[in-house]
Amino acid sequence: MSILRSATDPAWVEVALSDLDATLGDHAHCEKKAVATAVKLVADHPDRPVLVRRLARLAQEELTHFLAVLGELQRRGAQLPRDGGDPYVQALIKLVGGGGGAGRLVDQLLVFALVEARSCERMLLLGERLPDARLRELYQRLAQSEAGHETLFVELAVELGGEAARARLAVLAEAEALIVAALPLLPRMH
Amino acid sequence: MSILRSATDPAWVEVALSDLDATLGDHAHCEKKAVATAVKLVADHPDRPVLVRRLARLAQEELTHFLAVLGELQRRGAQLPRDGGDPYVQALIKLVGGGGGAGRLVDQLLVFALVEARSCERMLLLGERLPDARLRELYQRLAQSEAGHETLFVELAVELGGEAARARLAVLAEAEALIVAALPLLPRMH
Repeated sequence: MSILRSATDPAWVEVALSDLDATLGDHAHCEKKAVATAVKLVADHPDRPVLVRRLARLAQEELTHFLAVLGELQRRGAQLPRDGGDPYVQALIKLVGGGGGAGRLVDQLLVFALVEARSCERMLLLGERLPDARLRELYQRLAQSEAGHETLFVELAVELGGEAARARLAVLAEAEALIVAALPLLPRMH
Repeated sequence: MSILRSATDPAWVEVALSDLDATLGDHAHCEKKAVATAVKLVADHPDRPVLVRRLARLAQEELTHFLAVLGELQRRGAQLPRDGGDPYVQALIKLVGGGGGAGRLVDQLLVFALVEARSCERMLLLGERLPDARLRELYQRLAQSEAGHETLFVELAVELGGEAARARLAVLAEAEALIVAALPLLPRMH
């Protein structure tokens, strides 16, 4: 069961499908930024071997997704757009608590778990509704993988923060639902 | 034939082998930074589909190398150290010319070609001299892959900058040789 506290507005999928090149382009950038995020966490926490290894593998998977979405863009004759930033992720990152120690890292891991969960939810919607069987199949496959990433981030957070991390996840998930609700529906992943 | 204008001091390999955990740890960080560099180039140049695709694949390979070296560290009971920075790469990056347009990108690609070439040269030395057959085999394999990355960066630079890029490579390669000569021999890749 997903950690999300809200379902995406059903109108989102119509908006996403109305400009599929834009949605795919934004999705490619999401995958690229997920790689950068994982590599940054590895760089910041070399003393945590489990985290390092699992996030390096996650980055490999995200690169595979990036290349898959890039291939679909190319097949459609579309280019990767410029990355216009991601107000959803930026708002979530502002929720990460300050202070030293593991608290900040737990918050980061939980925020990334929520991002993966929201991406997964929307990929499933695309996987049901895309007009092209090939793209439907791709998005069903990507959604499965993102669900695995959601679980990985939660596991890493709970290994680090114990039950307090689960309580914190509940708080952050409520905040995530509010952030999503406040954002306009656009042809992008979030 | 390598693009390098100097051979590594033969004493380096003795220093590198004298603290193999440190050398492997530094090497792991080099691979990690190569991933970050490739992803940054992708982020900065979404309008160059060939560069985007080839660098995303390169990042995948570098992650595979990172995980391989990490596995060897773990096998030795050693931890990934903190990343102390890389004065060699920092000095090279200072050679990248300013100004807009493709000139800056050509310089960046050529600098990364030189970094890959130097890494490849040193991996070959390790591949000959490591005490352990398993590690020798690994470094011979990694060296081959890095040679491919050297070629890739040069090709991307020449596709972009033509013969002027080759002339610029000659200049940067001379500078790289001076930078290497001025650095102390340490148990690290550069």
